[in-house]
Amino acid sequence: MGLAREVAIIGGGMTRFHHSLHADKISREIFTEAIEDCLSSVDKGISPAKIDALVIGGTVGEFFEGQSHYASLMADWTGLLPIPSLRVETACASSSTAVEVAALGVASGMYETVLVGGVEKMSSLKTEKATEALMSGIDIAYEYPVGVTNPALYAMMANAHFKKYGSRWEQLAAIAIKNHHNASLNPKAQYPSEVLELGNKIGSKQGLSFKDPMDFLKSSANPMVSYPLRLFDCSPITDGAAAVLVTASCNAKSYTDTPVYLSGLGHASGTMSLHERPDLATIPATLEAAKKAYAMAKIDAKDVDLAMVHDCFTIAELIATEDLGFFKKGEGGRAAEEGRTSLDGEIPVNTDGGLKAKGHPIGATGVAMVNEVYKQLRSEADKRQVNNAETGLIHNVGATGGTVVVQIFRK
Amino acid sequence: MGLAREVAIIGGGMTRFHHSLHADKISREIFTEAIEDCLSSVDKGISPAKIDALVIGGTVGEFFEGQSHYASLMADWTGLLPIPSLRVETACASSSTAVEVAALGVASGMYETVLVGGVEKMSSLKTEKATEALMSGIDIAYEYPVGVTNPALYAMMANAHFKKYGSRWEQLAAIAIKNHHNASLNPKAQYPSEVLELGNKIGSKQGLSFKDPMDFLKSSANPMVSYPLRLFDCSPITDGAAAVLVTASCNAKSYTDTPVYLSGLGHASGTMSLHERPDLATIPATLEAAKKAYAMAKIDAKDVDLAMVHDCFTIAELIATEDLGFFKKGEGGRAAEEGRTSLDGEIPVNTDGGLKAKGHPIGATGVAMVNEVYKQLRSEADKRQVNNAETGLIHNVGATGGTVVVQIFRK
Repeated sequence: MGLAREVAIIGGGMTRFHHSLHADKISREIFTEAIEDCLSSVDKGISPAKIDALVIGGTVGEFFEGQSHYASLMADWTGLLPIPSLRVETACASSSTAVEVAALGVASGMYETVLVGGVEKMSSLKTEKATEALMSGIDIAYEYPVGVTNPALYAMMANAHFKKYGSRWEQLAAIAIKNHHNASLNPKAQYPSEVLELGNKIGSKQGLSFKDPMDFLKSSANPMVSYPLRLFDCSPITDGAAAVLVTASCNAKSYTDTPVYLSGLGHASGTMSLHERPDLATIPATLEAAKKAYAMAKIDAKDVDLAMVHDCFTIAELIATEDLGFFKKGEGGRAAEEGRTSLDGEIPVNTDGGLKAKGHPIGATGVAMVNEVYKQLRSEADKRQVNNAETGLIHNVGATGGTVVVQIFRK
Repeated sequence: MGLAREVAIIGGGMTRFHHSLHADKISREIFTEAIEDCLSSVDKGISPAKIDALVIGGTVGEFFEGQSHYASLMADWTGLLPIPSLRVETACASSSTAVEVAALGVASGMYETVLVGGVEKMSSLKTEKATEALMSGIDIAYEYPVGVTNPALYAMMANAHFKKYGSRWEQLAAIAIKNHHNASLNPKAQYPSEVLELGNKIGSKQGLSFKDPMDFLKSSANPMVSYPLRLFDCSPITDGAAAVLVTASCNAKSYTDTPVYLSGLGHASGTMSLHERPDLATIPATLEAAKKAYAMAKIDAKDVDLAMVHDCFTIAELIATEDLGFFKKGEGGRAAEEGRTSLDGEIPVNTDGGLKAKGHPIGATGVAMVNEVYKQLRSEADKRQVNNAETGLIHNVGATGGTVVVQIFRK
């Protein structure tokens, strides 16, 4: 099945992602900043009157702010009343799912132009409480009661992958180093710094200094969270918002000479609980979503020029690069170690720093991925620009793979 | 704007709505029951393999169950993996918005058949805590901190309406009596009983007995909640689920000889806070959503044969019947009192008992409204059947009107 009419992105924006910068704001203020950045990015300008609907991703605002009904709130605070607004929630995949809903709305003929945003204000809870809130995306009947957390669940996946394919923690470390390098080229990132720089800052509090990032990553300054995942294998708690503008391809050129076209939509559901899965070294919903997206885009994994994948933990990126077909199963770790996913590698992954270093404000993550692909395909990614990028992919995972969204964009 | 292809409903189902019947179940169990009822309602049968996606409405599960990411969970528990699934949230309008998203998905050509469900398990919290949880749909920065609750906000609207138009509490009572009468003909309703029957049950605990429903409604056995709203002006706390099946009209007849067609989609956002509205005796988003839905369906209010409107409080039904254009502004109360919205009136409203008496499991309410319209337009509503019903409307409100969804269906 395909869309009744083609859909394009004509604008994208985001706030700085950060753990403390937005501490004094509530989510509507962060969101509005991203919307302003997005609307002002439209090359030929856009009047708010041209926006027919607002679709937002927001995941855990109930826990972090005591607020639901975000869509109406954000329509009000961005001055867009009385347009229709709705919130989409698929745990950490919420805002890429929001992009999908916007695309379906445009393709259906109901809307011409839809604004898609995502926001999360997470810093209001301490890490322990935030971790508990994030467990709402996991099965509350089976996994929550036994006390596992998201880091522990991904750690199980890491151990399964290590055992089955002989992959090693050093390969995960290579992913962290690469993503922090990319983030060091992205001023909107939460940690726009190399691992070594951050490591020495952290280490100095313990009287330690490091000459090599691996020295830091192996040290007590990078503590174990859940074996084999250490602190720098985990994405942080982040406040932030991001947005993109979706319109019908037939009208896109009235907003910009260089729209980016949505060519593939993939979306699949998987079991919420890991115990239901026969193989923890893969995420079945990624395989399914990728298959659909590639089929719709009529391309193959080898045709993808860059990818934003869901690296909530370094092991998640490793597994994703295999499940998406960039590397054979079991070879994702070695590929990362060999730099094949670096900015100048054969398939640059997480050019913006990824969830690991750009930050992971849950409900904003998916749309921020789309924003990065939009910038890259328009050659607007400054120092992290990938040469000759024509096709970009985003891969956004809800929880441990209960939801996976894969979307493909082309110039 | 219209849809690229027409959309139809080919099945509908629901659980009994109830305050205690489902107490031992968690939401997935309640949801599955509604899905089974819906799928088995398809006249010519449907194979689960024909279902391309699942869209669900769920509103406050974070507070009531500590669970988010419901869509994936429900796809799993209904045996529908790995189809795409997503949750839509617009407070109390969540599941009619889910119907809208499903319709856009089908109209876009992406999907052929989409299952839409809504569920809420609310009985796990005591009323005070539940009321607090429901306040998450209101503005947490302005209304929540001053201590108002949903009953208080609707009470303000009632007082404004009384003052502006001279409407009276007795007119609200007439709405409660009518909706309980309709519910007495609906075995799926939470309270399938006349007001008088319930009143005598409640009164007997205080040694009171009543011969007329108004005697009970004016008595201490029907206590004041927020002036002028008494207990029987308020919808209850409810557990329940409902579902409908949406498909492309061109294929609908392979599932049933009597599909029901979606002819009008209206959806608008309004301010979250009442203090931002110049007139509390109307809900601006209802006016806007109705205008859109009527325009798309190419009909007028007078062409509607029956309507399910959002009577979270009796005053909400009164205002809705005016805002939807069934009666002139200020005449909704008198119309109710005169029986013009009764089953045999000129425009039967809430034939299933409404939120007031059928129950209001937040995330299931919108899709339950669509289910009732589906049954009515197929002449399957038994004792509450409206004669010669060809066009039905649903009106679903998020919180106090931050979101309003209006949908029109025809035979």
